[in-house]
Amino acid sequence: MKNKSVRNIAIMGLGTVGGGAYDIIASNGDYIERTQGLDVRVKRILDRTDAPLRARGIDPSLYCGSVDELAADKEIEVVVETMGGVEPAKTFITKMLESGKSVVTANKELLAKFWHELEPIAAAHGCGLFFEASCVGGVPVIRALGESFQGDRVQSICGIINGTTNYILSKMSSENLGYAEALGAAQSLGYAEADPTSDVEGYDAAYKLSILGSLAFHTCLPYGSIYREGITKVTAADIKNAHDLGYEIKLLAIGKRDGNNVEARVHPAFVPKNHPLASVSGAYNAVYLNGDHVGDLMFYGAGAGAHPTGSAIVSDVIKALSDKPRYCDFANTGKLDKSVSLVGDFVSGYYLCVTVDDKAGVLSRLSTVLSDNGVSIKAATQSPSDGDAATVMFLTHRAREHAVMQSLEAIGKLASVRSVDSVIRVL
Amino acid sequence: MKNKSVRNIAIMGLGTVGGGAYDIIASNGDYIERTQGLDVRVKRILDRTDAPLRARGIDPSLYCGSVDELAADKEIEVVVETMGGVEPAKTFITKMLESGKSVVTANKELLAKFWHELEPIAAAHGCGLFFEASCVGGVPVIRALGESFQGDRVQSICGIINGTTNYILSKMSSENLGYAEALGAAQSLGYAEADPTSDVEGYDAAYKLSILGSLAFHTCLPYGSIYREGITKVTAADIKNAHDLGYEIKLLAIGKRDGNNVEARVHPAFVPKNHPLASVSGAYNAVYLNGDHVGDLMFYGAGAGAHPTGSAIVSDVIKALSDKPRYCDFANTGKLDKSVSLVGDFVSGYYLCVTVDDKAGVLSRLSTVLSDNGVSIKAATQSPSDGDAATVMFLTHRAREHAVMQSLEAIGKLASVRSVDSVIRVL
Repeated sequence: MKNKSVRNIAIMGLGTVGGGAYDIIASNGDYIERTQGLDVRVKRILDRTDAPLRARGIDPSLYCGSVDELAADKEIEVVVETMGGVEPAKTFITKMLESGKSVVTANKELLAKFWHELEPIAAAHGCGLFFEASCVGGVPVIRALGESFQGDRVQSICGIINGTTNYILSKMSSENLGYAEALGAAQSLGYAEADPTSDVEGYDAAYKLSILGSLAFHTCLPYGSIYREGITKVTAADIKNAHDLGYEIKLLAIGKRDGNNVEARVHPAFVPKNHPLASVSGAYNAVYLNGDHVGDLMFYGAGAGAHPTGSAIVSDVIKALSDKPRYCDFANTGKLDKSVSLVGDFVSGYYLCVTVDDKAGVLSRLSTVLSDNGVSIKAATQSPSDGDAATVMFLTHRAREHAVMQSLEAIGKLASVRSVDSVIRVL
Repeated sequence: MKNKSVRNIAIMGLGTVGGGAYDIIASNGDYIERTQGLDVRVKRILDRTDAPLRARGIDPSLYCGSVDELAADKEIEVVVETMGGVEPAKTFITKMLESGKSVVTANKELLAKFWHELEPIAAAHGCGLFFEASCVGGVPVIRALGESFQGDRVQSICGIINGTTNYILSKMSSENLGYAEALGAAQSLGYAEADPTSDVEGYDAAYKLSILGSLAFHTCLPYGSIYREGITKVTAADIKNAHDLGYEIKLLAIGKRDGNNVEARVHPAFVPKNHPLASVSGAYNAVYLNGDHVGDLMFYGAGAGAHPTGSAIVSDVIKALSDKPRYCDFANTGKLDKSVSLVGDFVSGYYLCVTVDDKAGVLSRLSTVLSDNGVSIKAATQSPSDGDAATVMFLTHRAREHAVMQSLEAIGKLASVRSVDSVIRVL
């Protein structure tokens, strides 16, 4: 006999995050029923085989091998997608939405690339597409961007939104390790994939910035429009120099909106030690933002992991079962709006590190190039390095990106310059 | 001709916060219409006279001197209450709810004392009672407690939720000032009232903890059940000792739930410098909490001020105009639930500072008293102070409150003890 009050959901992909969501519903189901008035049941679990169910001790009769069977099950109201990747997730989500089921997804890559295709399908079928779990694990920043400080124009958003790179940089910072060593440590602990490209090259952060920035600025911020630079070139020497100058190095995702000018970039950055983001360490993440009335806000928590991300999924499942779906309040076209200008020549402080011949007048020549390009120097040091070489380090005042890049091109051509070793922006 | 799409609201009390909310609607009204689809208009402003409207250059024809006239105005859907205090705010809010208008309030004292009376009135008339602005200014922690991590049992909540005391303690910490001096500075900048009792004695924080804790633990946490101690006894010497030991002193509001045991207390505390709350300075506030699956989360931002708090009010106005009202998911009786036990004998670390005769064996006698009461010492120092006196400082391991208080009573009776100067708990 069907229990009328039971609310059935399904999970597609019982990996780490899907398993975390299952665990939460299994362990806190009574609590959710008491506090939310919802008796949530996982009715079916779709995966390639039933092995993941058996491995977790889940009743194998929940197993479903056919996405069409899932779509046809009228008792299932909400489907959780925790498969990852673009396909077959995109096809499967589309089938679910077309059959009128709301979808809860943790899939930032899919969203960053195809949100504009999926949302109209959801809207056409009157169901919801929820994705709190796609960004910053259990930190409820998507909910906040949609349903808090709605009267504020968000002017900037700045986040540490990739756990892997923050773990690596924190490890380099606290243990004075090089990048390769710290990456190895992250891999051995499962914080980094065997192929870490998506994390360490900033793709993952760019996907998330595309989603968060679009919500924050109420306009499409396609991930392809985001300047992206990873952490693979950050050296132990950079971190030591940062410390000496009163900074930590973090991979930041920065978005800004000023009128119709929008700026979006992912890159390592010097963060002043007294900034709240500087103390966000290890696998923790945080999003710092500024609204024109609320001022500065920060949301901090675990950026990844089975249970934090599972918590966000369960939150969305409850939302999907309780509230009417919400859709974007901007034209979700997947492209930059025609009214919006993307700022490539943004303004930032810069840390520059150059190896030069240890000869008289070199520091002066470098300084002149910077000055000729309108780049003002905040701090400079020159120290002997190996043999007859010296290391020159500059910290600039806020300057235009293009002016700094032009300066570096000119500096690289100077006879006395051996190499431009590091260019890291300053928050 | 009435514009059908206009959504009319009223403001009761055009002080700092009411004025901030008015400003936001005035300056960002177009933005709110574009992004939220709501043309929000402030139709009437209730106050004792129209002087506050004139002072702000607001059209005096918006002035309303009669709460009954406001209640009778069927075009007004939502009323903002920013009068503060219990009466007449309580009577006025009741009239608005009874006339079917949703109410948005920033009034933590009223809520902490009469939420259990007001909510049933709202529910009976199908309208909402919204209060994001009552706690932690613009930081959307009430929204988060209601609509995020709903699948998590919140196990603890720990907040710096009073801006005045955090400003005073930060000032004492950064400028090595005594309490009275720092209070004076706060008063001269408008961060503290002429009569600062509600802030410095922890009443304000206890009101907020009552609200936040009730939402977090899904049970009534009456403000009268909260242990409360202010910051007036914190000395410059305590802050120096804290720094030497690697701590900052903060006024914390702490709530914990473990099964049916609930603990709630407001008091100054040593916060380890590497804890995210330690770097929450000045007028900033933060709420740190732990859910059984999401792990640790922190919400940080301006804890007070016209525009941050106004931002929270505008957010609630938008919520009130957009969504169906939500009510407590627990029995909102205003009393501790019979199933809940209030933990008075809680566990904490302690910093103790005692002035003694500078004689052999004194440190040993004090240590013995602590040990006899089962209080284990983590660190101890004895240093000479004025004349033939010495200062003994202890940092204890986690111990039971009652055991520490019994120890201090016994220590106070020792012949060689001149005074027990400081007792501050450690986070």
